[in-house]
Amino acid sequence: MRRVVWSELDKTQRELLLQRPTRNLSAEVRGNVQAIMEDVALRGDAALRALTQHFDGVALDDLAVSAAEMAEASESLSLELRDAIEAAGSRIEAFHNATRPRSVIVETAPGVTCERISRPINPVGLYVPAGSAPLPSTALMLTIPAALAGCSNIVLCTPPRKDGSVDPIVLAVAARIPGIRVFKLGGAQAIAAMTFGTASVPRCNKLFGPGNSFVDEAKRQAAQRSDGPAIDMPAGPSEVLVIADAGANAEFIASDLLSQAEHGADSQVFLLSESAELLDAVSAAVDRQLETLPRREIASKALEVSRLVQVRDLQEAIDISNDYAPEHLILALRAPREWVDRIQSAGTVFMGDWTPESLGDYCSGSNHVLPTGGAARAWSGLSVASFMTSLTLQTATSTGIANIGPCAVTLAEAEGLEAHARAARLRLAALP
Amino acid sequence: MRRVVWSELDKTQRELLLQRPTRNLSAEVRGNVQAIMEDVALRGDAALRALTQHFDGVALDDLAVSAAEMAEASESLSLELRDAIEAAGSRIEAFHNATRPRSVIVETAPGVTCERISRPINPVGLYVPAGSAPLPSTALMLTIPAALAGCSNIVLCTPPRKDGSVDPIVLAVAARIPGIRVFKLGGAQAIAAMTFGTASVPRCNKLFGPGNSFVDEAKRQAAQRSDGPAIDMPAGPSEVLVIADAGANAEFIASDLLSQAEHGADSQVFLLSESAELLDAVSAAVDRQLETLPRREIASKALEVSRLVQVRDLQEAIDISNDYAPEHLILALRAPREWVDRIQSAGTVFMGDWTPESLGDYCSGSNHVLPTGGAARAWSGLSVASFMTSLTLQTATSTGIANIGPCAVTLAEAEGLEAHARAARLRLAALP
Repeated sequence: MRRVVWSELDKTQRELLLQRPTRNLSAEVRGNVQAIMEDVALRGDAALRALTQHFDGVALDDLAVSAAEMAEASESLSLELRDAIEAAGSRIEAFHNATRPRSVIVETAPGVTCERISRPINPVGLYVPAGSAPLPSTALMLTIPAALAGCSNIVLCTPPRKDGSVDPIVLAVAARIPGIRVFKLGGAQAIAAMTFGTASVPRCNKLFGPGNSFVDEAKRQAAQRSDGPAIDMPAGPSEVLVIADAGANAEFIASDLLSQAEHGADSQVFLLSESAELLDAVSAAVDRQLETLPRREIASKALEVSRLVQVRDLQEAIDISNDYAPEHLILALRAPREWVDRIQSAGTVFMGDWTPESLGDYCSGSNHVLPTGGAARAWSGLSVASFMTSLTLQTATSTGIANIGPCAVTLAEAEGLEAHARAARLRLAALP
Repeated sequence: MRRVVWSELDKTQRELLLQRPTRNLSAEVRGNVQAIMEDVALRGDAALRALTQHFDGVALDDLAVSAAEMAEASESLSLELRDAIEAAGSRIEAFHNATRPRSVIVETAPGVTCERISRPINPVGLYVPAGSAPLPSTALMLTIPAALAGCSNIVLCTPPRKDGSVDPIVLAVAARIPGIRVFKLGGAQAIAAMTFGTASVPRCNKLFGPGNSFVDEAKRQAAQRSDGPAIDMPAGPSEVLVIADAGANAEFIASDLLSQAEHGADSQVFLLSESAELLDAVSAAVDRQLETLPRREIASKALEVSRLVQVRDLQEAIDISNDYAPEHLILALRAPREWVDRIQSAGTVFMGDWTPESLGDYCSGSNHVLPTGGAARAWSGLSVASFMTSLTLQTATSTGIANIGPCAVTLAEAEGLEAHARAARLRLAALP
C-alpha cells in the first residue's frame, strides 16, 4: 500500500488522494441500461426471459421462486448456518425495532393538534446481488426492516444460477418473511421489472439494495422518471477508513482493511495514523495476510487505489474522515468514545479494537446497506424508516381556528392568496 | 367542475380521471436547463449574473443580500405581519422540535451495543420561489427545520425583483435564522449555483424547496450527477383531495378547493362524496366564490382538470384517495378519526370542518413542503430529519466478540469472504 504524509501534500494532492475510483460508466453502459429498461417496459415477461437467457445463461419458464424451492432451500442448510442466520436476524431485529419511527402528537395551540404517523410503503422491491458471491447477509439487511415496517407486499429479485436455481442461503433468509415473493432476476432487468411491473413481477413504489454499476445506473434511471419509484440511495463501490492510534493492533487492522478490499477491485481503503510504526506494521501485516487470501487478486487491485496516511494528530484524522465521509469508519483508538461528537459524516462507525467491520456486516444488529462515494454527507443507511412514509395530521376545533385562523388570514393576505384567506375567514365568521 | 359517478366508470376511465396534469416538460426545457447547469458549472458568478439579467431582467453586482437589506426588510413589515410570522414560527418550531430524530442505544448481545445518532447536513441549500407571488411561508417551512437540525451553514436562494431587491417578507423570515446567507437567484440558475458552488454561493450537500418545472428539472439533473447533491423530493404541481360526508359545509369545502386551485393553473382538486346534494351545493358555491376571486383566471384553469366524484360510500372514497396518494387530504367528515387507520398514502391530512388547508399551509405547525404527483406513496413531507443524516455506531467488548464473533465467521464463510471471517477469527484467537 502506498504511504503518504498528509502535511506534505498540497491542496490538489489531497483532493486527488481522497478521490474515489470512478466506476467507468460509459455512455454505452447508460445506453444499454436504457435499452433494457425500454425492452422490459414494452414486452414485460418476454423481455425478462430473453434478457435472463442472454445475461445469466439460463432459460426460465417461471421467473418466480416456488414455495417448494423456498422450503427445500431452508432444509438444505447446515444446522450451524441456520442458527447463525437466526442469531444474526434476532440482533438485527432488536436494533431495527428500537429505531422504528414513533408517533408524535403536539398541541401547538389551544384546540390545535399536529400529529405525525407512519405507514409502510407497498409494494417494495429488494435487490440482492450475487456477483462474485451471493450475499444472503444483504437479504437479512433488506427483509428485516421491511417486515418491521409492516410492508405486506415485498418483492425480492436475485440473479439465477446457470442451472436455473437461486442461492439457497438467500432463499432461506427470504423464507423467514411470510408472504415475500422472490424472483430469479438480476441486473438492470430486475430493476426494470420492479419499476414498470410485468405479468409476473409487481410494480414497486420504492427500490432497495446494492448492486453493480448496471444495477446502480438502472436505479438512477428509474428514479429519474416522473412516474418512477423512489430509491433507497445511490449505490457505489464499498469503502472503509480506519483511524488508529499507536496502541492499535496491526494484525487486526490489516484484517479489516482486507475485509473491505476483498469486496471488489473498485473498493477503497484508507488507514490514518499519527504513528509511523503502526503504519509500517500494518503494511507488513497486509502483505502477509494477503498471501493466503482466496480473493487476493481482487483485494490486490483494491489496494492499488488505497493509502496509508500519516497524520499529525487524531483531530487531523477526524477532519480528513469528515471530508471523505466514508461508508465504514473504524476507530481503532484507546478512547474512541471521546471522538464521537466530532464525527460529522459516515455511514457506520466501529468502536475500538474488538469491533471488526465484519461484525457490522453480518450480525451486530446494525444495517450494512450504507451510503458510499461520499453520499454519507446527505444520506443515511437503511432503517425501518426507509420502508415507511410519515404523514402529518392536523386537527383544529372551533376553538382552534378561533385561535390561529386570524394568523393564517394575515399571512395569506401577505402572499396575495385570497382564497386561502377566505377559507379561514368563512369559518371564523361561522363560529358557534 | 365536471361531475362523475365512480361506479359508472370503467377501469380506463378511472385511471384517466386520476391522472395528474403533466407538466409539459419538452426536450427543449430539459436541454435549456442542462445548458444553464453547464454554464454555471463553467463560469460561476459570471454565468449567474448573465442569467439573472436574462431571466429576471436585473443586473446585479452583488448576488448576496446584505446585512443592511436583511435588517431593513424586517423593519419595513407591519407589526401585525411580524406578529403573525412569529406566532406561526413558534407553532412550526414546537411541532418540528417534537419530531426530531432521537438517539437510540440497544445492547444486542452481552458486550455488544448498537446506537443511532444524528448529525446536521452542511451546507444545505433552500429555494424559495417567487413566481406569481413570493412565498414567505415556504421560507418558514424550510428555515425552521434546518435550524432545529443544527445546520450551521444554510444557504437560501430566492428570485430578485426587477429593481434588484428581494421580497421583504421572505427576508424578514430568513433573518430569524442567525448566520443564514441569502442570494438573489431564481430558477435553474439558483439550483445550479448551489449544486456546483461559485465564488459567491457555497456548494451544498442537499437541496430543498418547491419550484416551477425549471427548478424541478434542475434539481432532478443535480441529483442524477454522481457527485451531485441529494434533493428533498421531486416537486410538482400542488393538489388536494377532499372527502366529505352529507353533513359537511359546502361553502367551507368550496373555499378549500379554491385555495388549492389558486396556486397554479396546473393544480388539481378532487371532491369525493356519497352525497349528490353536497356535490351540487359545492359546485354552486365554487362558481359563486370564484366570481370575486382575484386569481380567478388561474383557479378556473385548475378547475378544468378537477372533478366532483360521487362515490358509493366512504370506504370507496378512502380507496380512491390511497390510490391517488394526494399531497393534501381533507376529511370533511363527522368522525374523521375513525378513518385515519385506513389512510395509506397522503402528504398531510386535515381533520374535520374547522381545519382548512390554509391552516396547514401557514401556521398549524406542520410542514407544507409535501410530496406531490403521487410521490406520497414513497416520500414524506419535510421534517427535521430531512436536514440530518443518521449514523450507526457499534461497540463490541472482548466479551462481545466472544459472543457474536463465531456467528460472523459462519456467515462470512458461507459467503466465501475469507478476509471477513479472519477479521473475527484473529480477534477470537487473541481474546484475553
